[in-house]
Amino acid sequence: MTLSSTAGTIVQLLAEKICAFDARSLTKRSIAQARTCILDTVGVTLAGIPEPCTQILLKTPGIAAAPGSSLIFGSARRTSALDATLINGTASHALDFDDFSGALGGHHSVPLVAMLFALAEERGSTGEAFICAYVVGVETEIRLARAVNFHHYDKGWHPTATLGTFGAAAAAARLLDLDPSKTAMALSIAASLASGIKANFGTMTKPLHIGHSARNGLLAALLAEGGFEAADDVFEHHQGFLNVFNGPGTFDIEKLFTNWGEPWEIEATSIGLKQFPCCGSTHPAIMMALQLRREETINTEQIARIEILPHGRRLRHTDTPQPQTSLDAKFSVQYVVARALKDGAVRLKDFEGDAHFDPVIRRLLDLTEAKPHPDMADDAEEQWGAEVIVTLTDGRRVSRRVDNLVGRGGDNPMTTDELWEKFSDCASRSLPREQIAPLFERLETLESVSSIAQVTRLLEVSVLHEAPAKKVVFAPRGEQEAPETTWVP
Amino acid sequence: MTLSSTAGTIVQLLAEKICAFDARSLTKRSIAQARTCILDTVGVTLAGIPEPCTQILLKTPGIAAAPGSSLIFGSARRTSALDATLINGTASHALDFDDFSGALGGHHSVPLVAMLFALAEERGSTGEAFICAYVVGVETEIRLARAVNFHHYDKGWHPTATLGTFGAAAAAARLLDLDPSKTAMALSIAASLASGIKANFGTMTKPLHIGHSARNGLLAALLAEGGFEAADDVFEHHQGFLNVFNGPGTFDIEKLFTNWGEPWEIEATSIGLKQFPCCGSTHPAIMMALQLRREETINTEQIARIEILPHGRRLRHTDTPQPQTSLDAKFSVQYVVARALKDGAVRLKDFEGDAHFDPVIRRLLDLTEAKPHPDMADDAEEQWGAEVIVTLTDGRRVSRRVDNLVGRGGDNPMTTDELWEKFSDCASRSLPREQIAPLFERLETLESVSSIAQVTRLLEVSVLHEAPAKKVVFAPRGEQEAPETTWVP
Repeated sequence: MTLSSTAGTIVQLLAEKICAFDARSLTKRSIAQARTCILDTVGVTLAGIPEPCTQILLKTPGIAAAPGSSLIFGSARRTSALDATLINGTASHALDFDDFSGALGGHHSVPLVAMLFALAEERGSTGEAFICAYVVGVETEIRLARAVNFHHYDKGWHPTATLGTFGAAAAAARLLDLDPSKTAMALSIAASLASGIKANFGTMTKPLHIGHSARNGLLAALLAEGGFEAADDVFEHHQGFLNVFNGPGTFDIEKLFTNWGEPWEIEATSIGLKQFPCCGSTHPAIMMALQLRREETINTEQIARIEILPHGRRLRHTDTPQPQTSLDAKFSVQYVVARALKDGAVRLKDFEGDAHFDPVIRRLLDLTEAKPHPDMADDAEEQWGAEVIVTLTDGRRVSRRVDNLVGRGGDNPMTTDELWEKFSDCASRSLPREQIAPLFERLETLESVSSIAQVTRLLEVSVLHEAPAKKVVFAPRGEQEAPETTWVP
Repeated sequence: MTLSSTAGTIVQLLAEKICAFDARSLTKRSIAQARTCILDTVGVTLAGIPEPCTQILLKTPGIAAAPGSSLIFGSARRTSALDATLINGTASHALDFDDFSGALGGHHSVPLVAMLFALAEERGSTGEAFICAYVVGVETEIRLARAVNFHHYDKGWHPTATLGTFGAAAAAARLLDLDPSKTAMALSIAASLASGIKANFGTMTKPLHIGHSARNGLLAALLAEGGFEAADDVFEHHQGFLNVFNGPGTFDIEKLFTNWGEPWEIEATSIGLKQFPCCGSTHPAIMMALQLRREETINTEQIARIEILPHGRRLRHTDTPQPQTSLDAKFSVQYVVARALKDGAVRLKDFEGDAHFDPVIRRLLDLTEAKPHPDMADDAEEQWGAEVIVTLTDGRRVSRRVDNLVGRGGDNPMTTDELWEKFSDCASRSLPREQIAPLFERLETLESVSSIAQVTRLLEVSVLHEAPAKKVVFAPRGEQEAPETTWVP
């Protein structure tokens, strides 16, 4: 794309796009997908609140100490929108259980949702304004990703954080109803606050990236609102974001603007939800196990043998026949398939305490064999297949197979039942049970909420209800980290 | 340098160096230089408080709203150490009048001083602990710079911000007396918070970089204190700070550790102070004009002609015979020399309002000619020379010449009188006159202060005294920005 001097700089053009956004341009599919992602993010945020990364942050002197109207989810504590964003934003990524975008090479919702709740609560925004700001934020960060990836990701940047800073600035500017000039300033300030390197993957600092970048994006927008100034050529400048973060010749800025909003990125099939709180590579096998159990009505006692045949690439880091720790269990395709066959679900509590030593599960593990699927070539284009074969005690052999199943979304959305299953499992870590269903229902009609306070009221918990912090289980680096250029959740 | 696996990772080795620091290793020269730099930074911070970048930041919702014991300089307002660092840190760089390090390619004190005051006030630290933390912080950021520069600077990073984040983390960890393990964590968290690109030079966002990076460094240390975790190989990891920010093959980590503290970087001759609040390239000519006026006792009325002959490289962006704005005046070697000859000083107020239209000055400008010095080769190694020749009405011709004069420091320190001249000029923008001399005296014996609160008491001003915000004058980009690889203040 050639940018003529009359057309404006990249931030100016981007700001115009953000400001020109019209709620009427939202298709039903956009709204539905946005609502689902927001709902799912609220769920995982509630699950992340008791995690040590969130709790240590909350206890840090000066953090969340400012008075304000923005809720720390799952508590009665309110603070500034900035710090509520930092806390809830970190919580939302604490378990790496949030939705993702293949194009972003990261997680599109977490830089936005906590921030938008905090800001919308402070400013009394409507659900519709929230969704519009969210969709524009997603568009901004994923469009930027299309322009800079996968070089950006492969080089070592954590795009959820670096590009999420711009997404958050765009979404906040939109919710604040900033004019194009101030919106451009917000994006320009954001360019100086972007950070986050992948060397810290697999530690508490990874979720911190999210709270930090979301807070920084909001800070950029608030500063711009107050008249703060930055350069207007922060993208194309020879020492601007593109050249400094990516490097000359490693980006294509045309992709930022071409077909903007046609359709909205939130509709992209490369966007998905994580249905189960374990390594994404185990999900196709879990899905097949659940399908088998449901459709063949298998009882655990009937099982004589389990064969798991994932794509070889998925098995490499999930071949853990006898998990000894909760973390092992998250990366054990054998364990999660056994759990799915036994319970008909894979839940957060299955990765806590001694859940992986459950005797029934241990018996199933002894009957299990996992090996790379012989029909799925190592260099195949689609690498997210799995087959699960169960031999029953009566000699019957039943199986289910899928050839590619990346997350849930796009053309393979989670059903309302599945969403509820995950949401209630997550939310129960921070909310009393009686608030969970009303919250879920409220979020399912988010676009009609007249004030976000109607939602946050259901996210508030008095001290009596506060859950104790639980031990976190982080993936070791290298295992959790996705292979280069083929980013996966 | 080859790092054996038994020796530990880079952050671990660095943390050991920081923790092993012994106050007894400080030479008199280190202490004197540290004290001078700290004193000078306090002065420019007070000058930067009324600037719009600081004032907008202070009014941003949620900023400096947390209760706390750390003072916002020049006010009666106290807040968290984190936010006091953000505000005072931004103020300290608002005028680009703070000290600098050639090796850093940036300003070594501003990421540290505001942060250390905020934290020391909160924790009741001594002046000696403050100086130790400062020296270690300077060592960390400049040593890192020696390992990554000048590629780091030339690529477009703002080293004061990116490396300053580590400097602040190191200094804060030291003041908090963290053990080597937690100090390493602080540095590792800092690696994920480093940011700041040069595209935003010449705007309010440049000083924001400093407040932001200082706050981030402190945040990293506070999180580490609370038990937060990060990776331990954030420097050498293939997607760590060195490879991601600089790029493979563009750094030499050996320089980080060789001769650590022998002597302390704070003693380096490449460290200097800015004596005058205008473009650094005009300073040699100002110095010669002041020397002439003082030694030849010249009165303005006696002047018939002024010739200014700076090194050609210095003249390119300071050849402004008739400045029309305050900003022009900052980049007019003709104006600042006339001002030096007339007043015997160049002060902040000389770049405010219509000071540059002073009739006496205008008359001198009409008598002035500036051209590149014929004896100073364009490609000479030393490029900071200037000669000033004044012809008097009685026909006498007097001149002074210097062949290289970069800033003030190292072997060419400012005298106490010169320090006071700058300090009192700066401090008077935020402090009532009666506090300035006691503050100066207190800072001149900082190492013997039993509690930093003794200093901050003198930085506190009741609401009655608060000065109104003044219009800021920013250098346009390109002019303020130093030429690549030969970084200059």
